[in-house]
Amino acid sequence: MKHITISEVGPRDGLQSVETTLSTEAKLAWIEAEYAAGVREIEVGSFVSPKLLPQMADTEAVVRGAQHLEGLIIAVLVPNVRGCESALRAGAHKISVPLSLSETHSLKNVRRTHAQMLDEIRSCLKLVEAMPESEKPVFEVGLSTAFGCTLEGVVPESFVVEMAERVLDLGVAEVGLSDTTGMGNPAQLERLLTGIWQRCGESRLTGVHLHNTRGQGLANALRAVELGITTLDSSLGGLGGCPFAPGASGNIVTEDLVFMLQSMGYPTGIDLEALLVVRQQVAELLPEEEWFGFTAAAGLPKHFGAATLQ
Amino acid sequence: MKHITISEVGPRDGLQSVETTLSTEAKLAWIEAEYAAGVREIEVGSFVSPKLLPQMADTEAVVRGAQHLEGLIIAVLVPNVRGCESALRAGAHKISVPLSLSETHSLKNVRRTHAQMLDEIRSCLKLVEAMPESEKPVFEVGLSTAFGCTLEGVVPESFVVEMAERVLDLGVAEVGLSDTTGMGNPAQLERLLTGIWQRCGESRLTGVHLHNTRGQGLANALRAVELGITTLDSSLGGLGGCPFAPGASGNIVTEDLVFMLQSMGYPTGIDLEALLVVRQQVAELLPEEEWFGFTAAAGLPKHFGAATLQ
Repeated sequence: MKHITISEVGPRDGLQSVETTLSTEAKLAWIEAEYAAGVREIEVGSFVSPKLLPQMADTEAVVRGAQHLEGLIIAVLVPNVRGCESALRAGAHKISVPLSLSETHSLKNVRRTHAQMLDEIRSCLKLVEAMPESEKPVFEVGLSTAFGCTLEGVVPESFVVEMAERVLDLGVAEVGLSDTTGMGNPAQLERLLTGIWQRCGESRLTGVHLHNTRGQGLANALRAVELGITTLDSSLGGLGGCPFAPGASGNIVTEDLVFMLQSMGYPTGIDLEALLVVRQQVAELLPEEEWFGFTAAAGLPKHFGAATLQ
Repeated sequence: MKHITISEVGPRDGLQSVETTLSTEAKLAWIEAEYAAGVREIEVGSFVSPKLLPQMADTEAVVRGAQHLEGLIIAVLVPNVRGCESALRAGAHKISVPLSLSETHSLKNVRRTHAQMLDEIRSCLKLVEAMPESEKPVFEVGLSTAFGCTLEGVVPESFVVEMAERVLDLGVAEVGLSDTTGMGNPAQLERLLTGIWQRCGESRLTGVHLHNTRGQGLANALRAVELGITTLDSSLGGLGGCPFAPGASGNIVTEDLVFMLQSMGYPTGIDLEALLVVRQQVAELLPEEEWFGFTAAAGLPKHFGAATLQ
């Protein structure tokens, strides 16, 4: 079975959605604890205007503070060239630019048309390409609202494939698929993945960012790994992910995802028991938040031990 | 795409787990409302000692009260011959006897060894066989703790297959697989299904009863329908299902399951919008209970309408 990389997005996607602003020390404690539990890719923050998201104002310090964790891929989100400059300066290993396939959503979210976003991506790419080889991060574009949009409704699948190709043709290493609105289903995911893979090659799309807004997260994740996806985004306790209504979770819950993968025999390198302890620790830092997921409350089966560290 | 039958188990599995005892009228109102939303199989109760489960004391009246709903399969659970007699007298269309594959669990749950349970099943079968052809219900045995047991730990997969064969050899129409403890994963489900199908034939195992105790319910359901399972048990709001800890859901949530299946194009005959209204109505009858599921809070996507009634 292929190794699956869990990319923990809680410190970015989770923390940008909550009222509380965690201190840099608290964020680094969270990141270090997940690293100690075996997580090897963490989206630690985003380089956006601190006026818009004060919770993310210290992202540069967080990236620098995580550099000593050997083997950890430090991922960040950047919405524009300015953010990309900061990410490169801080030494991020993976930079993601979100491109919303719903132009209405793109205008609302980052006030840019598709053409403007493609220009922005082109400019970011130039900056990345200018870096010395040893410091060059992985540069990817996350295709958001790829499964449907609350504003536009259907996002045509042919358009998703077309935009993936256009973005990859710019020279971007990879695109990712994001179910921003939690509308996706496994059949749709399969059509999108195979459509893009056939047109652009399997190595150009290896990760997906799925939400659990309608409870479909793990079913979609299952289909994704079966088809060959090797990186799955998820969030500790399902924190974040643009919930649309109270009680509607956003992100896939990291703990439940690790339970599924390891039970099936997919190695993740994560110690699930240790991860459940990290959940408790982070939950104490954010007492106002609703924590999702079922494995924590149910506990691990008696005989799970042998499969915990694969 | 194959039609998938959703077997709603809330009135049995849900209500046996809650403190409140609903009146016969309230139970029938629930059953009628789900029927009106398109549900065509409902486990309406169990014939167990009213001393043990007072919530189920009126199961005979509920079965009789549901008889006018044309095309509805009225399913019941019976633990023994006495229960089977009552079920036949009331006119149930489908009778399930649970057989726990963990003998420790069987002894604790129904105070019977495997040998004693097989005797009980044999006696039930005789009663069923003696019925006139037109009144003969479907008789099935649910293999519970098939994915692991909280008491015994691992339940060997070869033993699950062996017991399925022994039960089917008695002349039982079908066996079902129950993930009583919510320990199952899609790979294990696939091994068990293919193991039993190869030995006994696909027509002898067409339904599964999955739990969501560790959040794996829909992922397991996805794998099951892909492989050819055509009946899935689930419960409105995830009510019931032996939760092991507060906040740990038991059953798969009917609403989220219908969302998945219909989004993928599997016809279920269920009007999901109507079902979400039933959820609200039943929730008002059981204000003390925790209601699970995400679709209700997030709402249906704008463009879901066309797919609602398939």
